[in-house]
Amino acid sequence: MSIQEAASIITAPTQFIEAGSERYAYRRFGSGSGLPLLCLQHFTGTLDNWDPAVTDPLAEGREVILFENAGVGRSSGATPETMAGMAAHALAFLDALGLKICDVLGFSLGGMVAQQMALERPSIFRRMILVGTAPRGGEDIMHLEKPSLAKHLGDPTLKGYQVLQKIFFAPTESSQAAGAAFIERLMLRANDREPISGPAVAQSQMAAFREWEQVSGERFSDLKKIRHPTLVVNGVYDEMVPVSNSYWLSAHLPNAVLLTYPDSGHGSLFQFHESFTRQAAAFLASKSEFAPY
Amino acid sequence: MSIQEAASIITAPTQFIEAGSERYAYRRFGSGSGLPLLCLQHFTGTLDNWDPAVTDPLAEGREVILFENAGVGRSSGATPETMAGMAAHALAFLDALGLKICDVLGFSLGGMVAQQMALERPSIFRRMILVGTAPRGGEDIMHLEKPSLAKHLGDPTLKGYQVLQKIFFAPTESSQAAGAAFIERLMLRANDREPISGPAVAQSQMAAFREWEQVSGERFSDLKKIRHPTLVVNGVYDEMVPVSNSYWLSAHLPNAVLLTYPDSGHGSLFQFHESFTRQAAAFLASKSEFAPY
Repeated sequence: MSIQEAASIITAPTQFIEAGSERYAYRRFGSGSGLPLLCLQHFTGTLDNWDPAVTDPLAEGREVILFENAGVGRSSGATPETMAGMAAHALAFLDALGLKICDVLGFSLGGMVAQQMALERPSIFRRMILVGTAPRGGEDIMHLEKPSLAKHLGDPTLKGYQVLQKIFFAPTESSQAAGAAFIERLMLRANDREPISGPAVAQSQMAAFREWEQVSGERFSDLKKIRHPTLVVNGVYDEMVPVSNSYWLSAHLPNAVLLTYPDSGHGSLFQFHESFTRQAAAFLASKSEFAPY
Repeated sequence: MSIQEAASIITAPTQFIEAGSERYAYRRFGSGSGLPLLCLQHFTGTLDNWDPAVTDPLAEGREVILFENAGVGRSSGATPETMAGMAAHALAFLDALGLKICDVLGFSLGGMVAQQMALERPSIFRRMILVGTAPRGGEDIMHLEKPSLAKHLGDPTLKGYQVLQKIFFAPTESSQAAGAAFIERLMLRANDREPISGPAVAQSQMAAFREWEQVSGERFSDLKKIRHPTLVVNGVYDEMVPVSNSYWLSAHLPNAVLLTYPDSGHGSLFQFHESFTRQAAAFLASKSEFAPY
């Protein structure tokens, strides 16, 4: 296998780095002139939940760094019950790597962690991509008990990743077919896989969502402080973090472009991976201080 | 002047074509492998209200056809009081040109006319770009009497196009500066300009907006019938046709991508003309049956 072929999530080895009392798992692959792209994962997702069709094209222009937060996969420690707790781990990880500035792709939970990191240490990010996520004080964030999600999560006939196909994709033939292809891609990595998250991870991350829905003071006021050029992305049929949250993000962040996709849900970036990676690469390639690209 | 330099709204001659009992004014310039792009103009706008920074880059890949509807500028006839009336004129114009299919860029009022044309004759368009516009049954469409707009429209110190700078751009230093640059570009065409629209045009077009706000039956049900790949664009601070209308368009059209711009209003395409023309050209270059590009 050539070095070029090795720049893939399918084959990149899982690495570990110590920071404070923790040991974080991560994967780092790709090359190019761009800043490294830190990828922050969704609810209960491990390193294995990143889609090769998203990570690998982005790794053609930069290093892609997939981070596993404390308590998830083979990272040590307890899963924090706040986004601030997860942000502290992610910042400690970047410090341990010696990275002073990078770009970030935060998906769902990971997008909330990214916002918190940008608030606490603005200099850590140059450009931000926030997909299927919500601002503090957002609406209907990951309410798995609602019927549209609970019917799939409680369906005993759905095995393994099949539930992701149902809840990350829209209930149309075309979106479900894209979901099936996504799940196949998640299985391309044959070895060195992460352990699947258990109920303790889910419970702590769910507590973090509930805390993130709380507001003290003016709603969305935090967003004014995040002046990074930002690309907000969502599918219009997202049941997990509804698109209204992306409307709020892009309307209240002072420097954000919004891109929404039709016929898709939470996993719009996986469904439209060709468009998403083209748009994300163009956004990341911009040297402008303004988001439009 | 070379032929290349002549492919510009600044120098393209105004042409006329007869269709039925009308004589329509238009400009046609540019070349390339793309389908011709029909451009449908905003409230009271003439051929001279198209920004060279938007039309000319798009004319590098295709013919751009700027159409002046009945009663506007040097086009004959009475300004229709419905979008359907304006759509009938635009279709008659394309028939007179012998164009069986084209792409369309509809801005504000023009985006409503484009939707009506797509409903009446789906085969006339391949891909649609709808900027700063609203679906039938949209909200707060061109209510010039509201204080945020009336204060500028009634300001006697604003001369000529200066009012456009106020109402098309956000009330920030950066957006107003972009507005000033836009107005300068509108004056680059020195000769062969159109007469400015009078109160009769405004009154009829305003009646068409009021009719467009009306719904019979299920709200937004017309949008399901428009299956063309569509790019919806708006500035998040649009006071004339608020961005909520673009959210509805992109959420209810079955095959639409939404792009919103920060720090901008109704004239987001003029403010971010480099990004807009890059995105529009990429969207128009796609041969896919799906909107994502």
